[in-house]
Amino acid sequence: MTNEGNRGRPRSQQARQAILDAAAALLLERALSEVSMDAVAQRAGVSKATIYRWWPTKEALALDALYAEWNTVRPFPRDTGSLRGDLLSLLRPWARLASSRPYGRVLAALLTTAQSDPVFATEYRQRFVEPRRDQARALFQRATERGEIPAGTKIDVALDLLYGPLYHRLLHGHAPLTDRFVRDVVDMALDGILPGPA
Amino acid sequence: MTNEGNRGRPRSQQARQAILDAAAALLLERALSEVSMDAVAQRAGVSKATIYRWWPTKEALALDALYAEWNTVRPFPRDTGSLRGDLLSLLRPWARLASSRPYGRVLAALLTTAQSDPVFATEYRQRFVEPRRDQARALFQRATERGEIPAGTKIDVALDLLYGPLYHRLLHGHAPLTDRFVRDVVDMALDGILPGPA
Repeated sequence: MTNEGNRGRPRSQQARQAILDAAAALLLERALSEVSMDAVAQRAGVSKATIYRWWPTKEALALDALYAEWNTVRPFPRDTGSLRGDLLSLLRPWARLASSRPYGRVLAALLTTAQSDPVFATEYRQRFVEPRRDQARALFQRATERGEIPAGTKIDVALDLLYGPLYHRLLHGHAPLTDRFVRDVVDMALDGILPGPA
Repeated sequence: MTNEGNRGRPRSQQARQAILDAAAALLLERALSEVSMDAVAQRAGVSKATIYRWWPTKEALALDALYAEWNTVRPFPRDTGSLRGDLLSLLRPWARLASSRPYGRVLAALLTTAQSDPVFATEYRQRFVEPRRDQARALFQRATERGEIPAGTKIDVALDLLYGPLYHRLLHGHAPLTDRFVRDVVDMALDGILPGPA
């Protein structure tokens, strides 16, 4: 959402950022079905033609706007020396941002569209899901290099085990997505529900 | 969806089941926004007034229809003698049913409504989320009595750790919700991502 550093950028880059910011703001204010390209154009101070130059549909624009917002959270946390520390430093800011505003509603609307539109579903995974999973995979790679986890660890299962519970609370809202919950999930996923053999 | 045992039931009970079946069938065919009470009434062979006797809105009806369908999966699995076995016998049929038809789409639409309507959100949790969580809690209770897990285990975190990844794949569709994935999730959640101290 920040406009810092826009000075000196090419005008098209500024317009692009203004459109993303306007779309993100509108998505947080109202349902996806009530966000129109007209409203985005008006809020961003550009023409609809300018928007359509980059985004064919409002759903594609919504994806990029949401990704741009969420990507302001430090995507590659520093090496804390342990997988536990790395995961906490990846997931805690993510959970804070996700629960700070009505992103659950925005996400649910995008998922609903993805569920009935295979083309959009592919975009959703490519633009939104996979980039973050790639970042988390890098942490597991680091843990493998440290010798913390065996080379054969099923990293895709581990990613679902960590992100799944966070999305679950964000979308279902049966309990709050707190710092404490993130820590509990990381601890339980790393150490297991069953007590160790020791 | 079965009509077995309807003979001999009071007529109102038969009408109620016909409405639930019709709503479930329509929800699987089209988007929630395109399912009308008129269409449900026509499919079920009842009047709209009959539907409104039990359900004030189509969202409430959709919840009950979905819950009735999913509840056909054995809710209290037999005691297999271990938490691992109990969880597999709870979650595997659930995952098979959930991925057998476009339930991801139905769920996403209900979640979208829940996210923008607090009254419906409460209904969603009471009618749909909590009953199944209570069933899973009973398995953890059994495991505590067996001495498999310590009495202080954070069962609500454990439930999110198990259901979260399944819902994550069902809703995001980045990878399939297979029997093997359920087993991987149960194993990793119980044993932990980190190797044991042994």
